[in-house]
Amino acid sequence: MRLDTMAERPSQLDHLEALGDATRFAGQLHALIPKCALLENFSPAEVRLLAHFMTVYNAPAGTEVIHEGDGGDFMLMIIEGKVDVMKRDRWNAPQLIAVVDAGKTLGEMSMIDGEPRFASCVASEPSLIGVLDRESLARIIVEQPMLGAKILMELVLLLSQRLRATSARLLGLLDDNARNASGLH
Amino acid sequence: MRLDTMAERPSQLDHLEALGDATRFAGQLHALIPKCALLENFSPAEVRLLAHFMTVYNAPAGTEVIHEGDGGDFMLMIIEGKVDVMKRDRWNAPQLIAVVDAGKTLGEMSMIDGEPRFASCVASEPSLIGVLDRESLARIIVEQPMLGAKILMELVLLLSQRLRATSARLLGLLDDNARNASGLH
Repeated sequence: MRLDTMAERPSQLDHLEALGDATRFAGQLHALIPKCALLENFSPAEVRLLAHFMTVYNAPAGTEVIHEGDGGDFMLMIIEGKVDVMKRDRWNAPQLIAVVDAGKTLGEMSMIDGEPRFASCVASEPSLIGVLDRESLARIIVEQPMLGAKILMELVLLLSQRLRATSARLLGLLDDNARNASGLH
Repeated sequence: MRLDTMAERPSQLDHLEALGDATRFAGQLHALIPKCALLENFSPAEVRLLAHFMTVYNAPAGTEVIHEGDGGDFMLMIIEGKVDVMKRDRWNAPQLIAVVDAGKTLGEMSMIDGEPRFASCVASEPSLIGVLDRESLARIIVEQPMLGAKILMELVLLLSQRLRATSARLLGLLDDNARNASGLH
């Protein structure tokens, strides 16, 4: 088994310069542990192991790394730099919905469910992006089941936290609207 | 290893009659596969295996099975019956936010992250409830890693879908509010 050739390269990232698998960047990944929800319970050894399954890309400022509406089967980890998350509103105008930086992960939902991307992601600074795709994740689960379970457990945690936050915001807004509609300003 | 004694019994369910592990109900669980997001990709053999790690409870109509705000480390699967999901609004009045029936799962987020329950769940009909707790899930991951990965993968899928739906609703509402605020009725 040649670990160095295991990382996949999604064709949607063909416009980016690929820097090979993430093992060269294991030190940087390790430094991300405290600010990366996905890695927060990883040991340095687990990070090194995961690095074999990720490809790193160079994304100059202004480069789109995820395009809203595309199918997609990979997630991103921002190793260095900053990324704007933009979603088109109902008038098709792109709205900035988040700015994320090193340690944040993006695109987990499509990696898992293959549904169209919810938003676009554009590097707003020169960035280094680690990519993990579904096939690599499936391989981790088969070849390194404990690491696979750990990644999946962290993804569940991460999505739970986002769902709690989003649900609370939605319910707050529904409450406000009900209140306003009833004239209780 | 005695599989029949492996299922855990969370003390928060002490007011319910425990019917033992779910192996006796494997047939019913199997019949849920087509309508249960968690089980949809499970083989009958995997369902039987999972059943060893679940405890089944009898919940008469009116019984609360999850209490909003409680800590909690288990999830529920409705094997039979119907459950109301209620959340208190900012005036502390319980609001019905969903009605769920056989095949639906509840409480996955707290099982994983241990955060307080987002809503209360009350059986609105006599119900049979399968319970999987965090310790049992951890044991599945160690003892049956492929089954563990499958459960986690399904949980990620399920949370992704809920997060997409909730985010879309939130953004739609934010759009509406922005439109109304700008006088574009």
